[in-house]
Amino acid sequence: MSDDYRLSLFDCVSPLDFRYYGQEPALQRLLGEYVTERARVRSEARVEAAAVWALSELGGCNEAVAREVERAAEEVTPEEVAAEEARIKHNIRALVNALRARVGAEARPFVHLCLTSFDVIDTATAWRMKNAAQAAVLPEMKELVRILIALARREQGSLQIGRTHGQHAEPITFGFAIAEYVARLGNRCLALERAAQALPGKVSGAVGAYNASALFFPDPREFERRVLERLGLPVAGYSTQVVEAEPLTDYVHALISAFGVLANLADDMRALQRTEISEVGEAFEAAQVGSSTMPHKRNPWNFENVKSLWKEFVPRIATVYADQISEHQRDLTNSASQRFLPEIVVALTASLRRLQRIMGRLVVDREHMERNFALTSGLIAAEPAYLLLAASGHPDAHEAVRLVTLEAEKSGRPFTEVLAATPDLAEFWQSLSAEQRELLEDPRRYTGRAEQRAGEICSEWETRLVL
Amino acid sequence: MSDDYRLSLFDCVSPLDFRYYGQEPALQRLLGEYVTERARVRSEARVEAAAVWALSELGGCNEAVAREVERAAEEVTPEEVAAEEARIKHNIRALVNALRARVGAEARPFVHLCLTSFDVIDTATAWRMKNAAQAAVLPEMKELVRILIALARREQGSLQIGRTHGQHAEPITFGFAIAEYVARLGNRCLALERAAQALPGKVSGAVGAYNASALFFPDPREFERRVLERLGLPVAGYSTQVVEAEPLTDYVHALISAFGVLANLADDMRALQRTEISEVGEAFEAAQVGSSTMPHKRNPWNFENVKSLWKEFVPRIATVYADQISEHQRDLTNSASQRFLPEIVVALTASLRRLQRIMGRLVVDREHMERNFALTSGLIAAEPAYLLLAASGHPDAHEAVRLVTLEAEKSGRPFTEVLAATPDLAEFWQSLSAEQRELLEDPRRYTGRAEQRAGEICSEWETRLVL
Amino acid sequence: MSDDYRLSLFDCVSPLDFRYYGQEPALQRLLGEYVTERARVRSEARVEAAAVWALSELGGCNEAVAREVERAAEEVTPEEVAAEEARIKHNIRALVNALRARVGAEARPFVHLCLTSFDVIDTATAWRMKNAAQAAVLPEMKELVRILIALARREQGSLQIGRTHGQHAEPITFGFAIAEYVARLGNRCLALERAAQALPGKVSGAVGAYNASALFFPDPREFERRVLERLGLPVAGYSTQVVEAEPLTDYVHALISAFGVLANLADDMRALQRTEISEVGEAFEAAQVGSSTMPHKRNPWNFENVKSLWKEFVPRIATVYADQISEHQRDLTNSASQRFLPEIVVALTASLRRLQRIMGRLVVDREHMERNFALTSGLIAAEPAYLLLAASGHPDAHEAVRLVTLEAEKSGRPFTEVLAATPDLAEFWQSLSAEQRELLEDPRRYTGRAEQRAGEICSEWETRLVL
Amino acid sequence: MSDDYRLSLFDCVSPLDFRYYGQEPALQRLLGEYVTERARVRSEARVEAAAVWALSELGGCNEAVAREVERAAEEVTPEEVAAEEARIKHNIRALVNALRARVGAEARPFVHLCLTSFDVIDTATAWRMKNAAQAAVLPEMKELVRILIALARREQGSLQIGRTHGQHAEPITFGFAIAEYVARLGNRCLALERAAQALPGKVSGAVGAYNASALFFPDPREFERRVLERLGLPVAGYSTQVVEAEPLTDYVHALISAFGVLANLADDMRALQRTEISEVGEAFEAAQVGSSTMPHKRNPWNFENVKSLWKEFVPRIATVYADQISEHQRDLTNSASQRFLPEIVVALTASLRRLQRIMGRLVVDREHMERNFALTSGLIAAEPAYLLLAASGHPDAHEAVRLVTLEAEKSGRPFTEVLAATPDLAEFWQSLSAEQRELLEDPRRYTGRAEQRAGEICSEWETRLVL
Repeated sequence: MSDDYRLSLFDCVSPLDFRYYGQEPALQRLLGEYVTERARVRSEARVEAAAVWALSELGGCNEAVAREVERAAEEVTPEEVAAEEARIKHNIRALVNALRARVGAEARPFVHLCLTSFDVIDTATAWRMKNAAQAAVLPEMKELVRILIALARREQGSLQIGRTHGQHAEPITFGFAIAEYVARLGNRCLALERAAQALPGKVSGAVGAYNASALFFPDPREFERRVLERLGLPVAGYSTQVVEAEPLTDYVHALISAFGVLANLADDMRALQRTEISEVGEAFEAAQVGSSTMPHKRNPWNFENVKSLWKEFVPRIATVYADQISEHQRDLTNSASQRFLPEIVVALTASLRRLQRIMGRLVVDREHMERNFALTSGLIAAEPAYLLLAASGHPDAHEAVRLVTLEAEKSGRPFTEVLAATPDLAEFWQSLSAEQRELLEDPRRYTGRAEQRAGEICSEWETRLVL
Repeated sequence: MSDDYRLSLFDCVSPLDFRYYGQEPALQRLLGEYVTERARVRSEARVEAAAVWALSELGGCNEAVAREVERAAEEVTPEEVAAEEARIKHNIRALVNALRARVGAEARPFVHLCLTSFDVIDTATAWRMKNAAQAAVLPEMKELVRILIALARREQGSLQIGRTHGQHAEPITFGFAIAEYVARLGNRCLALERAAQALPGKVSGAVGAYNASALFFPDPREFERRVLERLGLPVAGYSTQVVEAEPLTDYVHALISAFGVLANLADDMRALQRTEISEVGEAFEAAQVGSSTMPHKRNPWNFENVKSLWKEFVPRIATVYADQISEHQRDLTNSASQRFLPEIVVALTASLRRLQRIMGRLVVDREHMERNFALTSGLIAAEPAYLLLAASGHPDAHEAVRLVTLEAEKSGRPFTEVLAATPDLAEFWQSLSAEQRELLEDPRRYTGRAEQRAGEICSEWETRLVL
Repeated sequence: MSDDYRLSLFDCVSPLDFRYYGQEPALQRLLGEYVTERARVRSEARVEAAAVWALSELGGCNEAVAREVERAAEEVTPEEVAAEEARIKHNIRALVNALRARVGAEARPFVHLCLTSFDVIDTATAWRMKNAAQAAVLPEMKELVRILIALARREQGSLQIGRTHGQHAEPITFGFAIAEYVARLGNRCLALERAAQALPGKVSGAVGAYNASALFFPDPREFERRVLERLGLPVAGYSTQVVEAEPLTDYVHALISAFGVLANLADDMRALQRTEISEVGEAFEAAQVGSSTMPHKRNPWNFENVKSLWKEFVPRIATVYADQISEHQRDLTNSASQRFLPEIVVALTASLRRLQRIMGRLVVDREHMERNFALTSGLIAAEPAYLLLAASGHPDAHEAVRLVTLEAEKSGRPFTEVLAATPDLAEFWQSLSAEQRELLEDPRRYTGRAEQRAGEICSEWETRLVL
Repeated sequence: MSDDYRLSLFDCVSPLDFRYYGQEPALQRLLGEYVTERARVRSEARVEAAAVWALSELGGCNEAVAREVERAAEEVTPEEVAAEEARIKHNIRALVNALRARVGAEARPFVHLCLTSFDVIDTATAWRMKNAAQAAVLPEMKELVRILIALARREQGSLQIGRTHGQHAEPITFGFAIAEYVARLGNRCLALERAAQALPGKVSGAVGAYNASALFFPDPREFERRVLERLGLPVAGYSTQVVEAEPLTDYVHALISAFGVLANLADDMRALQRTEISEVGEAFEAAQVGSSTMPHKRNPWNFENVKSLWKEFVPRIATVYADQISEHQRDLTNSASQRFLPEIVVALTASLRRLQRIMGRLVVDREHMERNFALTSGLIAAEPAYLLLAASGHPDAHEAVRLVTLEAEKSGRPFTEVLAATPDLAEFWQSLSAEQRELLEDPRRYTGRAEQRAGEICSEWETRLVL
């Protein structure tokens, strides 16, 4: 490879290139074929080859020509294309010229025949985005689901106080809390799968009306179908020079909404890692430094990183919505912006892999969960007490229990003691079954179906995602 | 109704309230039951009633109680609830108190039994958003599709120059251009339908673990299922205090991406209405004023309005993505923001109806289409010429034709005349069939499958949307 | 007032109208003149009157005419204008007709003479936004700053652990933490003041070239200057049909970036209110209900509300940026969208007032601050120990102290004890002054300049904002 | 340089790295010191050196130490730092270790003494962003202003029809239209200058309270001032672990709002380049290909590129607003996201340079401007006619002229002919001066102050920007 196109990572502008992707060989192996400039050129060449194959199937040229173009498409390098583009200032024409330079005189006229640039560009983009989802994003999402399922099962019965508004609410188990992310991420797997499958290609020419291909084929839609079938893509229901915009918005929405689930998980873990709460922790390596100046710090920096990348990438969907608008049979104002799409794929995948690492060896501190639970356990009985009281026919159970709560808090006496001692409520207290009294006295039992649901949800998603 | 809660439209802050909705009785009739504060209270009361019915089905109370609560739910007014909320500062408790005040002592304890506020709020929101889509947005989208189909069919064969980059490209028909919006809007109907159907409710209590309902029911999920079945909603796959966030993001994405299609249509029509192009026009009423100071102006202000509302509402999806994050079993930072969701429904529906009006009587100027076509018709043959030349084996057809184009432009001579007179190309010209020469000489014939596709697409979507 | 334009709050779509503004009489009094539809009409009439006054100053009509038009402008009602707009479908022409209907035959021709619609609309918008800032937003921001200063001073010396990454870091005082918001909000006051002052008006006609006014005045810029001077507005440096877009983006940026400061304050307070931390609390009213089903809950719902409104309104700036683009001498695609601008003013002002209420009676729990501080106080000495060790010449002080920290944590022994007992460090320990040892043994002293800075910052902003 | 950190451009993910920046040597020379990862490391080392210098000034170490550290800071490479970071997983500690490895035992303890990571990171970011503005963005903005001024002057008197709503409105000159962008960009230069100057640094330690530096200095603020003075930065009014967020939001707002002006200019030029309008054109190179399949196309692709990058980058400000929120004395969720900030600088600068190239040799077609003007010139007189009629006392001049317009349009007769022949208006027509009649008959004269204002605006901004 010529050195002209090599640069130091440190001379890159994008943090993806110099940091989150460019220094992560495993991520590069996983995504390289879909998200780089090299991937763009290679996938566009692949479309050119598919078009010549379809041509040969319909009698437009012989198979040897198709094979020759296919080989050229496999071998052409982005360097060749870039050099040609520097000369003629048109990226697809540059690719075509580079391919033509690699085939014989007989094959040459058939390269790009009946295609317009965006037949190639849009179809190749659909191919890359679909395959990036299927070969990389979805497997990584599912691997994270698998890890969360293992965690949810391990902690299926671990008592934890449920929190709403940051305040202690009612008891759950930590496994149940983790099951939330199993279900939400599982759901996003299905959404992304569906959106990726629906990304269409198009081979309908410069204004979408098959003007050029109709010169050669009685049914130019048949030509289009055959090209796209080779690439595993559906045909756009309508196209101008470009494919209809909405399937791509659906795809990016699926990515961004999945990213939101990761951000929520990261926030929850960050909060549980607060010094005063300390229910979970990132496992730290022996040599790792937490702070440049406070040697005792152990920060939830991986979770912070996920949240931070989410903040960077969630606004990008605005560009995709803006790109829905293209004047008449298209304008080019979505061209530069669409080049940035793969960055979203990279950032999401990097975050998925980061969370796999961290959640896979999350330190769970059950003792601290118990300690925190104990802080307010006396008051937790308020809800079941109110409900049982209401069901027993008390006309204003909510208010009655609220007053008991205030008194218990003020006096420091146990909730049930105050309840039993309240004149109006003593009779009610007597009417409860032993089991009900026990629950009010020991709110650790008041976890509802948390443990059971954690297990059910894990099983459900194992089945639905075929994990 | 008390006057306390009445105000002048002119004292409203929201342009929806004082202008785009509040002054549109038809829109109010269509959407009033789903998007107003009244709708919120009524749908929440409906959820409360459904819960008591489910309770009675499972033996928790008798049917008379359920009927009594249902009647109270139908009759309770937002004024009553607001007055109570002013007193106790909690909106759902206020509703509960208002319902309890309307039923007898026997029924009172069963109101809101086993429910937490967000069982009611989230379920009612799902109910409103789903039904707004099905009773209003989708019918209005389909009506616009119907109107566009009629227009596409009427103009199926009307010759128009296809434009890319704002430049003349290859010929199409105006009906084909309109078919784009039939297909894209049709596709969005399906997306919205799917997203609306998937909006779940939840009756799983304060932290999602059925803590309260498990006190009363051996299978609290059965109770939840029955409540939601009455309301026509699926059960959330997982819930904390609130339903999982993603189905609502899918729903808003479906709305916003549909809005983008309208914006693109509006932009296309605006551009075709430019003085120099003048291919279409908004029909003007006799008394209507175009400009306060330029009496001759006829501005595409309806299309501008649609584009402008799109600009206002497309960023709102950012809030929905931000609301995916809720700490632990929920925080309340999505509460105020979610109250604004119905505004998106209103703005989209108003725009759909506006476009129905305008597209339904769009003035199409075929003469101007012909005049504009003629501006560059001589050059349009460049593409088919290049393709036929390439297919005939010319080694550098694109370049050869480009030079012919430049010469034709420079000399003002017809493209085919220059082509035939170019030394290297004369032989090629002779080799063409009469039909091919005619096409190069009369590029009006070079519309590919535009007319045919316009018809096919209209038929396809009539079938798929059962119009 | 006719009942035609009255509606129930409950039939509004906007939560501002039915909840956050429409039910807040004090807010309505404060902002009503700037943010409602009534305000729009009144301010536009004010511009029309200013134009006739300028006309009379330049000899275009006599003063009696100007006085007559001014009175009409004061008296014209939005109802009249709306009725006329319903007829002719042009809002400014409707206003002009309504004004003309209120003046005699002599004055009639001078109404709107030399003006184009957007001379009136843009100038009136600038007037409203500027005065909303000066009469409402800025005073409310300053009142919040005042309240925060009082709080910062009261808690100037209250020991609190500083937190980074949610982890205990180094000590500060709570007053110092509050001073952050004094400084940041103070800074935003200056930014908003500057942006509001810079909002320009324009009276340059239909395409900005003074085509119309140059028919009548030798120096049409003089006419423009006089109109705007009456309204207290600078003249746009350039205008087309509309004022240059950027001053309004600066203004909205000032609002939105101020809102971000409120959101950060709200988040901090929410976190400090977490059950396990409990360092602050919202004061609750006696009858207030915290949860519909958990009577013991006391949620930070006011802070949550501020955060939630921030999430709703921060994306709106995207619309303002989109509205920077207006084709040629303008298109109308910023018209509907700009009507929503006042909503941002309302939401921010409502949040400012809410925070005034809550921060003004914030419950600060110094005991809990001490208790939390004690959790990690033994480790806090790590930073000063490392620094003193480094300054004493230790070649790898950071690493040495990190190991002491780990040992102290593991063994449960005091940090200084482990330090003194570490073979390599004993000599260093001996070399410290008594004062330095005391600081390491009592990290409560390690608050740096927190207390002093809190006071300085409060004084600085009292001076700069002339509080 | 080791090959470990080199990669092919084609393996980059970011279009900036492989296309818009990485293949633009001039842009790299201009911005390399401010926007790359190398720049980050170098500027952070610069802060470390400044700190040791300040230390030496205050007697904390001798000058030789400061000189030694400064040399190390100049020589340290990002490769060294990256290698160390891979080992210890902390980027600033890695830098510190790399610097320490380059200095002698005496100097070693003084490296990073009294600093926390974000003293270095935030201060270095402010240094880079400020200097990027001053050394690159502002000069490029001013160069574009200069080019626009030259164009505006050249076309100061070129008649063009002013357009509103895409419709012909009143006449201007093309120079006046260009002057819009002189004024708006000039204004953004001032805004960016102000925002860049205000970016503060901070050296206040781990929680902003000078805990560490107060151990060594009686006035730690003096130490901070001296460090920042060396770097040319103001001191933050308040800092936690990080600087107050708002100055950076102001800076990014200045960039983004400047970008919007470019996008508007690009849109205007694209529209004027439409085939039917053809008033301007991008100059094309001889070998350049316009379309891969339509050899005759000449697309406004440079303007489209600017618009497209604007669409990509304008949403990024949302991240900056989200980063205003940092919990307590900071969380790290703004760390990854802030790494992307320089991308905005790069995209804006690339767009400025692209517009310089294109606007500098814009092809202006005055003939087409005249031709387009002629399309509606007969109707342009409507506005002055209405105004003169109104000023002459006609009670309903606007309506009277609107009817003349409709009649002229319908009959194809000249506007003034119809006017003079209208019974009610004949007398008015007679009353006009010869000059006034000429203006109505030749609307080419109706350009108001367009030409004059174009010149004034150019002169004003030459002076204000000292061009």
